[in-house]
Parts: sequence; structure tokens; C-alpha cells
Amino acid sequence: MLTIFPVTRIPDVKKGDDLGKMIVNRIEDQGDEFEEGDIAVISQKIVSKAEGRILPLSKITPSEFAETIANETGKDPRQVEAVLRESRKIIRMKSGHLITETSHGFICANAGVDQSNVGTTRDSVTLLPHDSDASADRIRKTIHQITGRKVPVIITDTFGRAWRMGQVNFAIGISGMKPIHDYRGTKDMYRRTLQVTEIAVADELASAAELVMNKADRVPVAIIRGYKAPKGQGRIKELIRPEEFDLFR
Amino acid sequence: MLTIFPVTRIPDVKKGDDLGKMIVNRIEDQGDEFEEGDIAVISQKIVSKAEGRILPLSKITPSEFAETIANETGKDPRQVEAVLRESRKIIRMKSGHLITETSHGFICANAGVDQSNVGTTRDSVTLLPHDSDASADRIRKTIHQITGRKVPVIITDTFGRAWRMGQVNFAIGISGMKPIHDYRGTKDMYRRTLQVTEIAVADELASAAELVMNKADRVPVAIIRGYKAPKGQGRIKELIRPEEFDLFR
Repeated sequence: MLTIFPVTRIPDVKKGDDLGKMIVNRIEDQGDEFEEGDIAVISQKIVSKAEGRILPLSKITPSEFAETIANETGKDPRQVEAVLRESRKIIRMKSGHLITETSHGFICANAGVDQSNVGTTRDSVTLLPHDSDASADRIRKTIHQITGRKVPVIITDTFGRAWRMGQVNFAIGISGMKPIHDYRGTKDMYRRTLQVTEIAVADELASAAELVMNKADRVPVAIIRGYKAPKGQGRIKELIRPEEFDLFR
Repeated sequence: MLTIFPVTRIPDVKKGDDLGKMIVNRIEDQGDEFEEGDIAVISQKIVSKAEGRILPLSKITPSEFAETIANETGKDPRQVEAVLRESRKIIRMKSGHLITETSHGFICANAGVDQSNVGTTRDSVTLLPHDSDASADRIRKTIHQITGRKVPVIITDTFGRAWRMGQVNFAIGISGMKPIHDYRGTKDMYRRTLQVTEIAVADELASAAELVMNKADRVPVAIIRGYKAPKGQGRIKELIRPEEFDLFR
């Protein structure tokens, strides 16, 4: 049995805020507390805010290339400039969509640069954390310091997918667990070696957590209780398919 | 709060078995019962077995084209023939991988044709259900007839993804709910219209359920309790991105 509950009413996050502490406090306010092995799933948006990864559009001077792409896609040239600065490659540019590979290796629309939920003004964008694994490490360590509990942390963002409609929540940072459950070598119920061998459980946990994170409300954190996470200190890079093994770039 | 629990020890499924009835029985054996709004998530494998979607390799005569592809990919030509019969298009064929578009529109390795967990012999393959929505309809109706509860049903299979390592569980059939939560028109917490607008919750529910379905054990069903599913009678087609809007084919 696995339970997932939302951590509600996290105060508005500002640069420099200690997210680990805020989350522990809110869970206690809800009359609960961290248990050993709970997994904390945290939306990228509040991590970016705490790390000051917010850029006022007024501070961005679009390059000529950004202006060209803005013309082709119908986007704000300053936002395009922000996307290009966050990207190392343009994967697809078509019909108003700009899919890039971020500096971390994620392939997603607009390099994760986002305008919603930033603040009361339309004139800023949030960027993904520089190093979401490091962000997850910090939060995990704070939770451990305060509570004494070992709580793996996953940082997430919602991305679109090839071939499928709609977005789902993906892991973009991890700490305190491995992101993939490796079944290689295990046998199926007829004692044959399984063909399906590697399950990206960090992405499944991210998706599961999204089900209690209502985008329109203030629920940027969910706790997953009762899941036995693969042991080890994983890195998000393990979830990124190296280009030479990817049939879809 | 959302809970997910496995339905364990479902008996070995044979052609013609009434899955809805078997699931209701097993849940009652576990000392539980369906509640209104529970979501039943069911692995494709037992649905295919109940529907007799098993093909002995000995009954397949590979075409010349299948032999050619088998040579290039190092696969069994009879399995390749089964894959081709289940496909309407080859999407990628490279480095031993055969990614096709199934007759339903799913893009996945080997058209979902699978050798694991079929039976005590290595010489059969399972095929995806002909029409997983219809399969989900039947199971949902049986559960309703027996228990009086409205229980949406999702049928799932694990697929790989572009750009990401590992497989996750996806919805391949649905009944009694819509597969996408549409946030269009809702405002974020600063009263601005949300940019992220459509969440593929059926896929997220499939992924969430996989976390309690241990591939190596006999856990082909999970129940998700406490999730308010989008109302309506959805079809899996709503999750398939039409080719003309897909940047990655």
C-alpha cells in the first residue's frame, strides 16, 4: 500500500528561503511528520524561486537570432532569448513550438522557461534550477538534519511527450535514491528472465505526485509514503538517454 | 490523500476468464471492497490472456520482409512477423530496435508483442488487446453489475520513451473517465491563466499504479483510491497525438 498526500499552503517562496525547513514545518502544521523512507516530491517552480532563478524580461536584450525565432514562432523575443540561453541545442522548431535540449540534457518545450505562477506581474520568467540534483541534495540534507529521517527528494516539472497528448510530471532532480528500478536478472512468475528490465520509477513517482498537486492551488509538494525506493545516490543524468542511443532526435 | 494498493494473487488467467469478476473476488478476499470512484488499473498482459490474444510462434510463417528485418535486428523472424501484423507503420528500425505504430496508434517497441509472462513455454507471444477501450468497458460494467460501484478502468502497458532512459507504465485503454485533465481557462494562484493546460492524468495514474505492481510477482491489478477523475466517457485516442501535430515521427 502506497499513500500520497499533498503538502498544502506553503508560503509564497522567495529567494534564499530554506525549502527543506518550510516543508518540514508545513507537514507538522498538517499534524503529520516525516517517516523514514517517505519520498518528498517538489515542484521545480518553488525550487527555482528559492534559488532566485527568476529573470525579469526587461533585463533581457534579445539577440538577432532570438528575434528571428520569435518572428517564426510568434513568441516574445525576450522569452526566446531566455530559452536560447538555457539551451544547448534546438531539437524542433515548428508551428509555434520551440523544443530544445536544456543545458542539463532535458528535451522539452521552451527549455523549461515558464511564465505562469511567477508573481503578480507578467514580466518575469522562471528558469529551471542550475543543478536540480544539487537542489535535491540540499533539501534532503535539511530534512535529515531537522527530523533525523532519511527522505529521498525528487524535483519535478511537467513536460510534453512525443506521440502522446497532454503533459505529465517528470523527475528533473533526485537525491537519496536511484531513479531506475533495474529488474535485469530477475525472473518472471514462470521463472523466465524478464524482458522489461528497467523501470524509470523516479518519473513514475513524479507522475504519481502530480495527481495530488493541483496546479491552480498552492500545492507544490507531495509526500509519497510506503514506496521502497531503489537504494543508492542516483543522479538525474541516469534518466537522460545519451544522444547516440536515442532514435528520436 | 490518495492511496494505491495492489490486488495480489489473481489466479493464472485463461482465455474466456471474467476479469471483472476475478478482480472483485480478490479484493474481497483481501478484506476490502470497491468504493465509489476507485480506479482499477489493470496490466495489459492479463487482459490479453483473457481475450485469447496469445499466438504460438509455431503458427506464424514469416514473410520475406519479416525475414529481412529479423536479419537486420537479430530478432526471431516469427516474432517480427507478429510485430508487423500488429503494426500499421514502422517508425524506427535501428541497432536491434523495432519501433512501430500499432493498429491502435501507439508508438512502442515491437508493437507491444511480448514474450515474458505468457506461460511456461517460451514459444508464444502476447499481443495487445484488439480494442483496449472495449476491454476496459467490459470490466467496468462487470464491476458495476456486481458491486453497484462506479469504478473507472485503465488498462496499461510499459513502454519506452524518446529521450529518457527506462520504461514507464502508460494507459492503453480507458473507460468511465476522461484521460486528460483540462486546465484551460483556470487561473493560477496569481489569477493568471495557466500555460500548462492539459495533464494526461490517465498516464500518470498508470505510472502511479506501476509502483505497486511488481513485475516479477503476480500483481497485475492496482486500485487507486481518493483521486477525483475527470468526468466523462473518454477514449484512449484522446491520448494519441495526431501525426500532423507530432514533431517527432
